[in-house]
Amino acid sequence: MRLPLRSFCIFRSLICRRPTTADARRRNSSSAAMRLVQFRRHGDGGSIIRVGVELGEGLGVVDLKAFDPSMPSTMRELLELGDKGLESAHRALASGQCLVDRADIQLLPPVSAPEKVVCVGMNYKDHCLEQNAPIPQKPIIFSKFPSAITGPYDDIILPTESQEVDWEVELAFVIGRRGKHIKEEDALSYVAGFTVANDVSARDWQMNRNGKQWLLGKTFDSFCPLGPALVTTDAVKDPHNLNIRCLVNGATMQNSNTEQMIFKTAALVAWVSKFVTLTPGDVFLTGTPPGVGVFKKPPVYLKRGDVVECQIDQLGSIINKVI
Amino acid sequence: MRLPLRSFCIFRSLICRRPTTADARRRNSSSAAMRLVQFRRHGDGGSIIRVGVELGEGLGVVDLKAFDPSMPSTMRELLELGDKGLESAHRALASGQCLVDRADIQLLPPVSAPEKVVCVGMNYKDHCLEQNAPIPQKPIIFSKFPSAITGPYDDIILPTESQEVDWEVELAFVIGRRGKHIKEEDALSYVAGFTVANDVSARDWQMNRNGKQWLLGKTFDSFCPLGPALVTTDAVKDPHNLNIRCLVNGATMQNSNTEQMIFKTAALVAWVSKFVTLTPGDVFLTGTPPGVGVFKKPPVYLKRGDVVECQIDQLGSIINKVI
Repeated sequence: MRLPLRSFCIFRSLICRRPTTADARRRNSSSAAMRLVQFRRHGDGGSIIRVGVELGEGLGVVDLKAFDPSMPSTMRELLELGDKGLESAHRALASGQCLVDRADIQLLPPVSAPEKVVCVGMNYKDHCLEQNAPIPQKPIIFSKFPSAITGPYDDIILPTESQEVDWEVELAFVIGRRGKHIKEEDALSYVAGFTVANDVSARDWQMNRNGKQWLLGKTFDSFCPLGPALVTTDAVKDPHNLNIRCLVNGATMQNSNTEQMIFKTAALVAWVSKFVTLTPGDVFLTGTPPGVGVFKKPPVYLKRGDVVECQIDQLGSIINKVI
Repeated sequence: MRLPLRSFCIFRSLICRRPTTADARRRNSSSAAMRLVQFRRHGDGGSIIRVGVELGEGLGVVDLKAFDPSMPSTMRELLELGDKGLESAHRALASGQCLVDRADIQLLPPVSAPEKVVCVGMNYKDHCLEQNAPIPQKPIIFSKFPSAITGPYDDIILPTESQEVDWEVELAFVIGRRGKHIKEEDALSYVAGFTVANDVSARDWQMNRNGKQWLLGKTFDSFCPLGPALVTTDAVKDPHNLNIRCLVNGATMQNSNTEQMIFKTAALVAWVSKFVTLTPGDVFLTGTPPGVGVFKKPPVYLKRGDVVECQIDQLGSIINKVI
């Protein structure tokens, strides 16, 4: 049964917090960016995922399903709706209603259970220089299993199977439209938005074992912290001119700019779509700048208790404790 | 609303064909194997997936959702129900009702959209000998994206990007229960069943490009024909004593036995679950025996119009035309 609009709004007013003047001030002071998130409300059952829009980084979240019960429950489903889904999210944000306080939620990765996590190796000029490696003529593509994805503030679980777990801050993007053989000039229209990733890597497994196939070293559970939000493409000024940093226990380990990327967003979409059909929710990790632990002299690896923070301008920070 | 059993059965009798004496004879002559399939009914919309149980290879299929509308619509959802789901499927099969003729359906891959397609390289002793490669001490794990999966009789699409597309018949198994750090002695209880796969491989991309990461050469769309059925574990006498063959245009190219596998099903489940949480629907491809095209002298590759048939005893055949 679909409630008539008036009773629907009355219903909403019962379950949604009305915005305060402070909320409105925050909303106005934030950029025009639509920051889409997945979250769990404290008190909900453990498995309930919700989709929302942040008023701004770290601010309150508009709960899309509370605003309109017909809205989807996961980011992947929202993206599958295409422009209509994003327009509905816009409307919910503009209403300022159905706001949830940050204290009442746990932020989840902005996309969970994508069909693909596509990763790019050796994609920063300065990272190639760091290891005396030639600059690749074509993108080097590998993958993680989606089970590696974890939330923006979740723990990185140090596996007993590795003694060489390393950090890699990366610009990630998420596909918003199904496509194959996409032309580079059309490619950005297939990208829903950008987010921050840590391509956590067990160097022993990546480099010296498993027949030199990187997969196992890259795909331990929790080896893909992602978030905090999916910042829509039209809200990022220039995704290839963003400062990108990784801090371990507060010390800056990686500090570069996405302008150093060899193959940029559009080129990567075009390249990978020669091989596979891309689908809404597919996550791309676009490679890491210099400063990873394995190339430090002597090498430095993550240990229990470390805190890793990955930051990208305009997108935000993810902070993950190593346990 | 749940219909009372009597009216439910009346309703069923309207939409399901009742079994004939011929059907009963076929059912009795087939093994006790439960052969689970995904299929589409001609006349259904294109996107409707159904789950069913074959009376026997190539015979009629009991439509689970027609038998009980509360049954799931995909194999992955059925497997997520665990033993309860399989018991329901057993009941539907035993009823012999809601049979659909093979002429009225298109068989789909028995699992679509799994979280993972886990592949094993160099896992047949005779395949290692064929290429003068040492026998691996540990499994070599790589992956395909789930978008590579295609049906048991669907076409293999030859990509213009490769001139070296090769066949690889493989025993596949599917995970039925969520688990991490699974002990080898418990591992078989995590396996729902077995099926036949063709690990189609673009050798140029696998071996010489993409920084020697195999992923791209393995994951073109349609590079993972799978089926015809998921044969439940308790219905396969000994999965490691099955003849396994690949024929191209009727000529036998691969002809071995799964006893040649170096790391067998339980060992593979235990190994991979050290790294990642396994989840119902995850598909494992367990490696190929000798006779692939790349090691023939001179090498032979697939061309448009070729027909590839992969056969495994007790499981069945998949037949895919190259277009």
